[in-house]
Amino acid sequence: MPFSTPLAETLRRNLPILNWAKDYDRDTLTSDLVAAVIVTIMLIPQSLAYALLAGLPPEMGLYASILPLVAYAIFGTSRALAVGPVAVVSLMTAAAVGNLALQGTAEYALAAITLAFMSGVMLLVMGIFRLGFLANFLSHPVIAGFITASGVLIATSQLKHIFGIDAHGHTMVELLGSLFENQHLTNPITLLIGGLTVGFLFWVRKGMKSMLLGLGLKPRLADVLTKAGPVLAVVVTTLVTWGFDLEAQGVKIVGEVPMGLPPLSAPSFSAEIWGSLFVSALLISVIGFVESVSVAQTLAAKRRQRIVPDQELIGLGASNIASAISGGYPVTGGFARSVVNFDAGAETPAAGAFTAVGILLAALLLTPLLFFLPKATLAATIIVAVLSLVDFSILSKAWTYSKIDFTAVAATIFLTLGMGVEIGVSAGVALSIFLFLYKTSRPHVAEVGLVPGTQHFRNILRHEVETHPELVTLRIDESLYFANARFLEDYVYDRIACDEPIKHVVLLCSAVNEIDMSALESLEEINHRLRDVGIKLHLSEVKGPVMDRLQRSHFLDELTGTVFLSHYEAVCALTGDCAEAAK
Amino acid sequence: MPFSTPLAETLRRNLPILNWAKDYDRDTLTSDLVAAVIVTIMLIPQSLAYALLAGLPPEMGLYASILPLVAYAIFGTSRALAVGPVAVVSLMTAAAVGNLALQGTAEYALAAITLAFMSGVMLLVMGIFRLGFLANFLSHPVIAGFITASGVLIATSQLKHIFGIDAHGHTMVELLGSLFENQHLTNPITLLIGGLTVGFLFWVRKGMKSMLLGLGLKPRLADVLTKAGPVLAVVVTTLVTWGFDLEAQGVKIVGEVPMGLPPLSAPSFSAEIWGSLFVSALLISVIGFVESVSVAQTLAAKRRQRIVPDQELIGLGASNIASAISGGYPVTGGFARSVVNFDAGAETPAAGAFTAVGILLAALLLTPLLFFLPKATLAATIIVAVLSLVDFSILSKAWTYSKIDFTAVAATIFLTLGMGVEIGVSAGVALSIFLFLYKTSRPHVAEVGLVPGTQHFRNILRHEVETHPELVTLRIDESLYFANARFLEDYVYDRIACDEPIKHVVLLCSAVNEIDMSALESLEEINHRLRDVGIKLHLSEVKGPVMDRLQRSHFLDELTGTVFLSHYEAVCALTGDCAEAAK
Repeated sequence: MPFSTPLAETLRRNLPILNWAKDYDRDTLTSDLVAAVIVTIMLIPQSLAYALLAGLPPEMGLYASILPLVAYAIFGTSRALAVGPVAVVSLMTAAAVGNLALQGTAEYALAAITLAFMSGVMLLVMGIFRLGFLANFLSHPVIAGFITASGVLIATSQLKHIFGIDAHGHTMVELLGSLFENQHLTNPITLLIGGLTVGFLFWVRKGMKSMLLGLGLKPRLADVLTKAGPVLAVVVTTLVTWGFDLEAQGVKIVGEVPMGLPPLSAPSFSAEIWGSLFVSALLISVIGFVESVSVAQTLAAKRRQRIVPDQELIGLGASNIASAISGGYPVTGGFARSVVNFDAGAETPAAGAFTAVGILLAALLLTPLLFFLPKATLAATIIVAVLSLVDFSILSKAWTYSKIDFTAVAATIFLTLGMGVEIGVSAGVALSIFLFLYKTSRPHVAEVGLVPGTQHFRNILRHEVETHPELVTLRIDESLYFANARFLEDYVYDRIACDEPIKHVVLLCSAVNEIDMSALESLEEINHRLRDVGIKLHLSEVKGPVMDRLQRSHFLDELTGTVFLSHYEAVCALTGDCAEAAK
Repeated sequence: MPFSTPLAETLRRNLPILNWAKDYDRDTLTSDLVAAVIVTIMLIPQSLAYALLAGLPPEMGLYASILPLVAYAIFGTSRALAVGPVAVVSLMTAAAVGNLALQGTAEYALAAITLAFMSGVMLLVMGIFRLGFLANFLSHPVIAGFITASGVLIATSQLKHIFGIDAHGHTMVELLGSLFENQHLTNPITLLIGGLTVGFLFWVRKGMKSMLLGLGLKPRLADVLTKAGPVLAVVVTTLVTWGFDLEAQGVKIVGEVPMGLPPLSAPSFSAEIWGSLFVSALLISVIGFVESVSVAQTLAAKRRQRIVPDQELIGLGASNIASAISGGYPVTGGFARSVVNFDAGAETPAAGAFTAVGILLAALLLTPLLFFLPKATLAATIIVAVLSLVDFSILSKAWTYSKIDFTAVAATIFLTLGMGVEIGVSAGVALSIFLFLYKTSRPHVAEVGLVPGTQHFRNILRHEVETHPELVTLRIDESLYFANARFLEDYVYDRIACDEPIKHVVLLCSAVNEIDMSALESLEEINHRLRDVGIKLHLSEVKGPVMDRLQRSHFLDELTGTVFLSHYEAVCALTGDCAEAAK
C-alpha cells in the first residue's frame, strides 16, 4: 500500500488528479467526452472573442484554452470548473497592458503573456502560503457591483466592432465620447451583420430552445443545438462575408490566424515591466480567483462535493503559468462554460483535458476557415454573453437592506464605469473595509434592564424592562479595540454626567469579543475616573478568551467592582433585589 | 444678549477664545504670565535644537514658536497645550524634505514651509469635515512603539553633533554606518562639550531638584531652576566656546542667526512639490494631531475640562498655516512643554500668546548672543529630551497581553528603525487594521449549554453545562460580515457532519452586532443546506438593530425555524425541557 505513506498523502493533497484518476472508468470517460465536445463548440468562438476584447490576436485566445485546461485538470480540485479566457479578466488585461504598449504590437502581446505569468506566480505563492482567505475581503455586493459594471463596460467597448468604427478607452466616458466622435464613419453593412447577430444570439438564449422542443426535438439535442448557436452565427456570417466579398465594402474581418500548435513563449523579466504590471497582476489574480472559486463552490455544492480553496489557488496558478509558456494570456474559471460543462455531465477534470484536445484540433485545422469571420460577429458574441452578467437589482437590494452595503456597491459600479476596472474594484474593496471599520468605531451601545419574569436583559428603549436608579448597565455591541476605545470613554462619561444617584456602572460584555491593549487602557482610565466620583465599575458575562487575557493584565487588581459570570447575578448582588428568583 | 443668537453660538464654537476671554481677570493674567516665562525659557534652546534636527536654520525654530502659538490661542480648545516645534515632527520633516532638496539650500527651507502649509490645510479640512475620528485608527501600542523608535532614531541622528563629525540617513542602518565610517574624524573638544552637556542635563532631570531642595530652596524656585537647566548649559558652553576660541579647534557653532521679526513667507504652490510632499504632510498631520490631542486630553482630564478633538484640528491647522506664513515649519502640541505649562499654572491659551511674545523678544534681541553656541549643546538637549520618550517596556507589556498587539508594536518599532519614520508608522497602522480584520475573519465560535440552575448559557468546553443531543447551539463571537461569511458556512457544515441525531441548530446571536449582505447570503445558504438534510435553523437573542434589518429582507420568510427573544426560551421550546423553570 504505497499510497498511505505520508509522502503519498502529501502528493494526493497537492495533486488532486491522484484522487480521481484511479477510479476512472468507461462511464466516466463517456460523460467527460460528451461534456468536452459541447464545451469545445462553445469555447471556440468565445476564445477568439475574448482575445479580441483583450486587444490580442485571436489565436492567443485559442492558445489560452489548451495547456491551461490540462494544468487545471492536474492541480485543480473542482470536478466541473472550465478554465480559459473570461470576459472580466480579458477586460482587465486590456486595461493593464494598454498602459504599457500599443495594441497590435509585439510588446503588447509580450506584456499580456508576462501578466499571465505574474498572476500565475502570485496565485501559486498565495496557495503555498494558504492565503486564500484574502479573497474573503471582497464582499458579495462589491463583487456583484463590479461584475455588473464590467459587463456594461465590456458591452460598450464592443460597440465599435458592431458599428465598424474606431473607438478606445477604459471608462464609459472615454468609450462613449470616442464612439460619438466617430459615429459618422459607421459602416452600414457591418452594423447590419452585428445587429442581426446580436438579435439572433439573444433569440438563441431566450426563444430557440422552446422552438426546437416545439418542433419535436429531444430536450438533450435542443440543448446542444442551443449551445451551438454562436457557432452557427460564426459560420453563417463568415460565409456571407466571403460570398459577397464584404471585406471590400469595409467589413472588418479576423484575417489570417496562424495554424499550428501553440508556440513556446516566455514572459518578460524586465523589472520595469514587472513593476508597472504588479498591481494589475494582483487584482487579476484576486478577481479571477474569486470568480472561479464561487463558480466552483456553487457547482460542488450541487453534487455534495467540496473544493479546497487553497488548492484552487495552486490549480489556477499552474493554469496561468501554463498559459504564459504557451502563448496565452491570463485565464480563470469561467461562469458560463463551467455551468455548461456541469450540465453536460462532466464528472472529472479530465473533461477539461479533452476540451483542450478539441481546441488544439481547432488551432491545428480550423484557423484558415476563420479568415473571413467578421469582427462584428465576435463582438456580438461578447455583448450577448456579458449582458447576462449585468444585474443592477443589486443596487435596490442593497439599498433596502443596508446603506453601508449600498454605498460600497454604488461606489464600485460608479467608479468602475467612470474610472476603469482597476480603480473600481480597488475602491470597492477599500471602501467596504473602511465602512466596516467606521461602523465598529462608533458601536451601538444599549442601556438594558431586566425583562420581567426572566433572567434576560434587553434595551430599555425597545422593551418593557425593570431598572434600578443606582445601577446603570451598558451593553456594548462591539468588540473593544483601538478604533472605538475613546468612543467608549466618552460614552460612559456622558452617561454618568446626570443627577441620578448612580453607584454602579456594569458593562455587559456578552457582545465584546475582544479587548485589545488600547481598549484595556481606556477601561483602566474609566475605572480611575469613576472611582474619583465614587462609582464602582463592574463587568458581566465576559467571554472566556477575553477573560483569559484580562487576567494577564493588572486591570482586574485595580477594578473597583467585580466581574460577574451572568448579568442576572450582577444585578442580584448589586441591588439585593432578586432573592425570590435565585435558587 | 447678542451672544445667544445662532451666529454667536457658531462663533463661540469655532472661536474658543470667546469662551475664556470674557472671564479673563488679573489672577488669570498672573498665572498665565508666570507660566509663559517658564515655558519661554524652556522653549528657546528647544526651538533652536529642533530646527537643527529638522535640518533647518536655527531661526526657523524660533519663528515656528511665535505666530503658531497666537493662532492656537485663538482657535484651540485646550487650556494648557503648548504648540511649537516638537521632536518627532521635526524628524519627520527632515525625512520628508530630505528627499526633495539638499540641507542648507533655500529649496530645503521652502519645502519645509510648504510642508507646514499643506499640513495646516489638511488639518483644517479634517476639522471642517469632523474627521478627527480618523486618529482613532492609530492604536495605542502603535503610537507607543512609534514614539519609542523615533526617540532612538532622533538620539542617534544627533550623535554626529556630539562627535563633531558628518553623518546622515533616515534609518538606524544608514545613521550608524555613516557614524562608524567617519568616527576617526571625531573632534575631541566637541565630544567633551557634548558629553559633559549630556551628563549635566541628565543630572538636571534626575538629581538637581533634590539637591536644590537639600540646599534649602523653596520647591517652586527649585522647579523653575531645574527647567532652566538647558539654558544654563547653553550659556556656559557658549561662553566657553567664545572665551577659548574653540571654533578654531573645530567645534561647530550655530553662527549667525538673523535678528528681527519673523519674515513674511509663502509656501510653494508647485504641483510637483505638493505631489511629492502629500503623503508626508498627511502623516505629519495625523501623527502631530494624535500626539497633541493625547497630551491635551490628559491635561484637560486633570482639571475636569474637556477638549473638542474636531476643534483641535482647526486649532492645529491654523497654527501650521501661521507657521508657514511666518518662516516656520510644521508644529504641533508638544508633550514636555505642555506639562511644564500646566504645572507652571497656565490657565488659558493666553499663556501661549505670552510665550509667543517671549520668543519674539528673544528673536529680536538675543540672537547675536547665540553666535558661539556649540551645535553639540543643542544636540545634547535633544538627546536628553527624546530619551525620556523611549520606553521599550511596551514590547513586554504587549507580549503578555496580546500577541496581535505585540506584532503591531514590534513591526512599528522594527520598521521605523530600519526603514524610517514614514514607512514605520504607515506599516504599523496598516498592520494593526489588517490584524483586526484577520481576527474578525476567523471568529471564535463556542458551542454552549445551560449553566444548571440558571437561564445562562456558556461554552461547553469551559463550564459544566447541560446539553441536548438533538440541539446544537453555536454562539458566534463576532459580527457577521463579508470577511467571515464563508467561515461561518464552513463551520456549520463541519459541525453537522457527524453521527448525532441533530434536529435543530440555533445560532445564539448575542455577540452578533451586525449582519451585512454577504453574511445574509451565507445565512440563506446555510438555511437551505440544513433544510435539505432535515435540520431546522433558529436564531436567538438577535439584537434590535440587527433584527430591524433582517425584517427588511426575505430571510425570515424562508427561515425553517424561529427567532427567539432569549436563548432560554429557544431551548425550552425546542426541547420541552424546562416547564418547571419557566414562569
